[in-house]
Amino acid sequence: MNFTTETSAEGVIERDFVLDDVTGVLWTPETRRDNAPLILMGHSGGLHKRAPGITARATRYAADHGFSVAAIDAPGHGDRPRNAKDREWVAAMMRAREAGEPIGPIVAEYNTDLAERAVPEWRATIDALLPELGPETPVGYGGVTLGTATGLLLTAAEPRIRAASFGSVLLFDALTEAARKITVPVQLLAAWDDEEIPREYALTLFDAFATPHKTLHANPGRHNQTPWHEAETTARFYTRHLIPT
Amino acid sequence: MNFTTETSAEGVIERDFVLDDVTGVLWTPETRRDNAPLILMGHSGGLHKRAPGITARATRYAADHGFSVAAIDAPGHGDRPRNAKDREWVAAMMRAREAGEPIGPIVAEYNTDLAERAVPEWRATIDALLPELGPETPVGYGGVTLGTATGLLLTAAEPRIRAASFGSVLLFDALTEAARKITVPVQLLAAWDDEEIPREYALTLFDAFATPHKTLHANPGRHNQTPWHEAETTARFYTRHLIPT
Repeated sequence: MNFTTETSAEGVIERDFVLDDVTGVLWTPETRRDNAPLILMGHSGGLHKRAPGITARATRYAADHGFSVAAIDAPGHGDRPRNAKDREWVAAMMRAREAGEPIGPIVAEYNTDLAERAVPEWRATIDALLPELGPETPVGYGGVTLGTATGLLLTAAEPRIRAASFGSVLLFDALTEAARKITVPVQLLAAWDDEEIPREYALTLFDAFATPHKTLHANPGRHNQTPWHEAETTARFYTRHLIPT
Repeated sequence: MNFTTETSAEGVIERDFVLDDVTGVLWTPETRRDNAPLILMGHSGGLHKRAPGITARATRYAADHGFSVAAIDAPGHGDRPRNAKDREWVAAMMRAREAGEPIGPIVAEYNTDLAERAVPEWRATIDALLPELGPETPVGYGGVTLGTATGLLLTAAEPRIRAASFGSVLLFDALTEAARKITVPVQLLAAWDDEEIPREYALTLFDAFATPHKTLHANPGRHNQTPWHEAETTARFYTRHLIPT
């Protein structure tokens, strides 16, 4: 892992990093407490590691709660080139949208592929960050839509993730199966007026989680809209489950 | 309003009061901030003003958040005598339970009657408490089951209530109609494995609220079980909506 830039503002250090062909960013508080959590943030489809929702939460979490936060670009997103297959999916989505056809099936297939490719990248990122932050650092995960698809597969596979916050997502079998394997505490944030993802998907996903430590928060809002007060609730969720009392 | 007892422990003053034939209790922090909120807590059916869930939240809210908290006994509950009609309903519930018949319809009818009688009692309690606490004191409400039935009718009728937290409740038309009139911020806590109240009731109630400032929190748990972390979330809900920034 190579850190390529470093800036600092309002008590938070922000560093870009490159790990093989993965581009990422790490936010850390200037004064770090022992065993302060690392939160992995997965961005939504079409966005990138510095999407406004991620940057706002990351700087708040680092400044106010002392968390470290890492985000990486999904395959073919942000600073990473799209491969031929990615370009085909994007073209197919654009064709469907122009023709007024539903894009859900294409998004689901594309997201599955992206999520599967992102899992080993996130695991390598954890491998590289823990020596930097301290080997006992508790790790949490957070993300909506594509960030949820990735996070479900990652959390099911990666025992170092000890709490995860998810959002509404186009559900397909691989995700429901992953949820059935998740035994760490989870929070699910559902945008109740999502025009692309039916409420039923959030209810089905919530039921599927194996853990008894799960909480579903539904709020009015359209696709990818989560009210800001949930950022604070999510920080408390991580604090509750990742910081020993 | 007559205060009949006063005790103090861990920074919280607890006083019993009597207002006409209503018995209640008021918790206040020993050091009160200007315009600190007053939270009204409605207890569940069969319980009383000092039910463990109410006492635990009231003392925590007063000690940690500086709120004042008031609870009153519902008609025929706690220190208040049951009238002939109350006794009939209780007997009917016991007969149904012994016969293995559903008690839902009886509970719904009994709770409607209790909630309707409690509304003017709560309004008189607000009238009496505000001069004591300061006329500009912002008022919130919280309660589950019977406490929700009462709170829905009260919040729809009483403009001084500026934020309310509800729980799952056996829904009947008067409650849904009340929810449609509620325009202040609301939080709805649903016990997701409630053996007496179907999930659908919580979803219908959540949709019915007129306010765009609504949030639904579903947690695993049976009837009247709310995980303790929601007590803290609820305190933050009141802080967000009742304390000017």
